[in-house]
Amino acid sequence: MDISTAYKDNNYKIHVARDILRDRLETYTGRYESVYYIIDENVYDIYKETKLSFIKSPLVVTGGESFKYVSPLMHTMEELLASGIKRNSLIVVIGGGATGDAGGFIASIVLRGVDYIHVPTTLLAHDSAIGGKTAINSEHGKNLIGAFYRPKAVIYDLEFLDSLPESEVLSGFGEVYKHAMLNSPGLFEELVQATSDSIDVSMLPPFIIKGIETKMKIVLEDEHESGSRKFLNLGHTLAHAVEYKYKIPHGQAVMLGIIAALYISNELNGTDFNLDEHIGYMSRHGYPVNLLREMDTGEMMQLMMKDKKNHRNDYISYIVFKDKQTLEVKDINTANLEKILKALKERI
Amino acid sequence: MDISTAYKDNNYKIHVARDILRDRLETYTGRYESVYYIIDENVYDIYKETKLSFIKSPLVVTGGESFKYVSPLMHTMEELLASGIKRNSLIVVIGGGATGDAGGFIASIVLRGVDYIHVPTTLLAHDSAIGGKTAINSEHGKNLIGAFYRPKAVIYDLEFLDSLPESEVLSGFGEVYKHAMLNSPGLFEELVQATSDSIDVSMLPPFIIKGIETKMKIVLEDEHESGSRKFLNLGHTLAHAVEYKYKIPHGQAVMLGIIAALYISNELNGTDFNLDEHIGYMSRHGYPVNLLREMDTGEMMQLMMKDKKNHRNDYISYIVFKDKQTLEVKDINTANLEKILKALKERI
Ligand SMILES: NC(=O)c1ccc[n+]([C@@H]2O[C@H](COP(=O)([O-])OP(=O)(O)OC[C@H]3O[C@@H](n4cnc5c(N)ncnc54)[C@H](O)[C@@H]3O)[C@@H](O)[C@H]2O)c1
Ligand SMILES: NC(=O)c1ccc[n+]([C@@H]2O[C@H](COP(=O)([O-])OP(=O)(O)OC[C@H]3O[C@@H](n4cnc5c(N)ncnc54)[C@H](O)[C@@H]3O)[C@@H](O)[C@H]2O)c1
Repeated sequence: MDISTAYKDNNYKIHVARDILRDRLETYTGRYESVYYIIDENVYDIYKETKLSFIKSPLVVTGGESFKYVSPLMHTMEELLASGIKRNSLIVVIGGGATGDAGGFIASIVLRGVDYIHVPTTLLAHDSAIGGKTAINSEHGKNLIGAFYRPKAVIYDLEFLDSLPESEVLSGFGEVYKHAMLNSPGLFEELVQATSDSIDVSMLPPFIIKGIETKMKIVLEDEHESGSRKFLNLGHTLAHAVEYKYKIPHGQAVMLGIIAALYISNELNGTDFNLDEHIGYMSRHGYPVNLLREMDTGEMMQLMMKDKKNHRNDYISYIVFKDKQTLEVKDINTANLEKILKALKERI
Repeated sequence: MDISTAYKDNNYKIHVARDILRDRLETYTGRYESVYYIIDENVYDIYKETKLSFIKSPLVVTGGESFKYVSPLMHTMEELLASGIKRNSLIVVIGGGATGDAGGFIASIVLRGVDYIHVPTTLLAHDSAIGGKTAINSEHGKNLIGAFYRPKAVIYDLEFLDSLPESEVLSGFGEVYKHAMLNSPGLFEELVQATSDSIDVSMLPPFIIKGIETKMKIVLEDEHESGSRKFLNLGHTLAHAVEYKYKIPHGQAVMLGIIAALYISNELNGTDFNLDEHIGYMSRHGYPVNLLREMDTGEMMQLMMKDKKNHRNDYISYIVFKDKQTLEVKDINTANLEKILKALKERI
């Protein structure tokens, strides 16, 4: 299936299907004088003799998040320049969200910008395929250096997901779950039913596509200044703290963060989300829900305070549900928030 | 005088006058939560107790071209992040074209882009104030990494030019001379007359302003795909080779390159530029015209071949005059070009 972005300009296609990489790529590469491939080393190791065997002399880069730093980035940039990259060259970035973020950033600044195509290989792709954000990490935090720079296409060949380690499936699925909640109670119900026993990646494509559409809708609304882009951070406030403290994959932390957001919505806005259902579902699939019981709420509060961006000191902005379908950003007094988190701890 | 850019969007003002820095800055800074200053160390040393004394805790960066490399750039970027720069902060970059290029690039990628204002302190400003190019150097050449990113304003306080070393005046003036030629024979005549005895910086403002307007016109035409932006490279083909070989400042090399371009126009297009007048003028003002007599034409040819971007191997694209007022890009056979340069050598 092909989805087209709906920006004002610079739109691109997101191709989503199994075993499409080579064919789809060919429809683009002909327009360029030369094509350079930047590939996550773990992905290349798995597919170099099969799906990726058609690629001659790729730039194989260090796997996952470790590529998102200045030094490996500059190394790859100098390699591109050494091999004579031109303004009308194309860069194809093959890997997960991390490789996509750093590879897209390289494309945005080498020769002041060349075209690039992202070929995502993880479940997170449905998230990073929209929004045009590229970035690397600074000494002072994640994603602090980067650019808004859209790809010319996203070729999401779902076959890559076959080799994804279980813990990465759980992590990427966190964002699928989130996007389903952001979309509608109906879609969310369908997702939970389709995955009630286990998260079978082959069941996910319809939800991945809906997830892409949901994010596109929210990003577009925000271009009209509604501020709704913040809703994409559902679950992320506590998640960042949990992720930092317990070193669990991002999307797994988001799942725990969603539980907290639902609990807070019930407490402060009188919604009636069935916490036990969410908790049961997550435990069954292997998410480390126990961390919500173990966490030191004081420490979590401190991390959340440090993380938050330019706001009043005694409040934390939290994304919560106003009612079953509507989100809002709520400023919660820190003392009150800690009390609620303590209660959640008991509740788990 | 205030000039407004005439792009489709994201326009900004270029304020040109003496002693305007503090007043003009104040009309912008109020809109931002915080303001960070990046200042060329040579400029700061000269003005820290006078014009720049109002600035508290600036980031003073290594002077001129030495700042245009990844390592000093990242150092300054981490300093900005350490001191808590936000999306709605403003960066003010004070220095010549080099500081402007690197400082503008920092602004374009820190937190995926914050606003910046350039305060140029050299004669080259009239060139870098238009075009939105920011860049740093790679191991493989100048300006190979960067972004197109426009400032929110350019505040060109001409008082800074008072302290400019003579050789920098000569260099920056090279581009003023070039822009006058690109504008019209009339403006060029006026410039030569106004500077016939010496290059007195206080005489230049009208020509600086015309230069900015000329570049703006050409850059805009090129947005409509006419390719005329290449004309801005008048004199640059040979200049890059001379600059590289003899380590003279860029704008001085451009002046020698202009002589070559005029000679070639006379030879190949039958124009009647008065070479002796140009050569006499340049020698009188201290440009190293003798290098055109000393140069090894074979070596110059090799450097020009290496420098040129994606074109046929036995030709070099040269910006020449078709007639007194009209420029064109001409592909000149390399053997022929070397013959002409040899003849020029004899002619000097
Ligand atoms: N740009 C955006 O809009 C956006 C959105 C969300 C997240 N992100 C970024 O994405 C990153 C996380 O992305 P991710 O979850 O895809 O992780 P990742 O790219 O770090 O990959 C996770 C691990 O899986 C491996 N891997 C990737 N594909 C594989 C495959 N098909 N088979 C086997 N192993 C494979 C990688 O080598 C790595 O070790 C973060 O840096 C985050 O900041 C960006
Ligand atoms: N972005 C663009 O469109 C554009 C256009 C042309 C050139 N450039 C770039 O600009 C750079 C050259 O700029 P430049 O000629 O301004 O040189 P520069 O910025 O390197 O400055 C030259 C020297 O003069 C010193 N200096 C600067 N201002 C001074 C002052 N007021 N008094 C005393 N000393 C002073 C600097 O410390 C430096 O040592 C190159 O890197 C070139 O690539 C960019």
